[in-house]
Amino acid sequence: MDTIEFKPIGIIHTPFTKDSEIPRQAVSAPEISGTIEIKEEYVDGLLDLKKFSHIVVVFHLHLVTFTELISCPPWDDKHGIFSTCSPYRPNPIGISVVKLNKIAGNKIHISCIDMADGTPVLDIKPYIPDLYPQENIKVGWLNNKIALMNKGKSKILFEPLIDN
Amino acid sequence: MDTIEFKPIGIIHTPFTKDSEIPRQAVSAPEISGTIEIKEEYVDGLLDLKKFSHIVVVFHLHLVTFTELISCPPWDDKHGIFSTCSPYRPNPIGISVVKLNKIAGNKIHISCIDMADGTPVLDIKPYIPDLYPQENIKVGWLNNKIALMNKGKSKILFEPLIDN
Repeated sequence: MDTIEFKPIGIIHTPFTKDSEIPRQAVSAPEISGTIEIKEEYVDGLLDLKKFSHIVVVFHLHLVTFTELISCPPWDDKHGIFSTCSPYRPNPIGISVVKLNKIAGNKIHISCIDMADGTPVLDIKPYIPDLYPQENIKVGWLNNKIALMNKGKSKILFEPLIDN
Repeated sequence: MDTIEFKPIGIIHTPFTKDSEIPRQAVSAPEISGTIEIKEEYVDGLLDLKKFSHIVVVFHLHLVTFTELISCPPWDDKHGIFSTCSPYRPNPIGISVVKLNKIAGNKIHISCIDMADGTPVLDIKPYIPDLYPQENIKVGWLNNKIALMNKGKSKILFEPLIDN
């Protein structure tokens, strides 16, 4: 299995220039807006995207400098990295569904975002709810924690991207 | 913006050894089973994953050999690549939500899959429906096509991964 190389198709501009300001999840930050600036050579690929209400943004968690296979959220016990949303993954790839507000030239205006300013974008996909199962879902150790997250407590919604 | 390098954390074994057999979407293939074989050095990261019913698999569409910014599905007109699920993307990254059946050692048994045999896996995340918006969704040009897909017509569910 060889190394796989990707080149960013663009960069995300967000208000989050300090990592401690970054919301835990995109859905928890409806009021936060930003812009994806697409490289000119990829702009033709944006055709027809503007009529979608939401897009899936695949991005490089570029501030991550190490990997931890066992992750310990500040609000819970230790868990295997692949059962968490921790950024300290072997391949630090982030996926967020964000609201698409407007496309103007090579700029995609979005909200409900949780990325650091300057985040490299790897891919953009249309968000199609039908592709996501809704029945017979079990979320393991996150079960009670999701209920807590939905209460909107800020100590859960905000945490440093990088522990110091 | 530099090149970003990732290393596969594992490989997917599926029945799809010929690209023409691959279902269009994971949700369309509930009866299809396969196995993700995780590299030994990452197995500790699987802790607690087994109690999730579904996982998000991020993978490299390794059979893709070219990019097309304007994509033309066999069942529709031309559209910008970022508004489609076409594999011929600038960075050929696939994302599928699959059913998790069992974890035994370094093997994750899954179903509802749409990957080619031998696909390199980049990341595995827990599937948490709460992270995906459900209200006020618009799916642009795909609107009528999703209804058609849900009828389960095989000419839509199956297509070659690579056009010859």
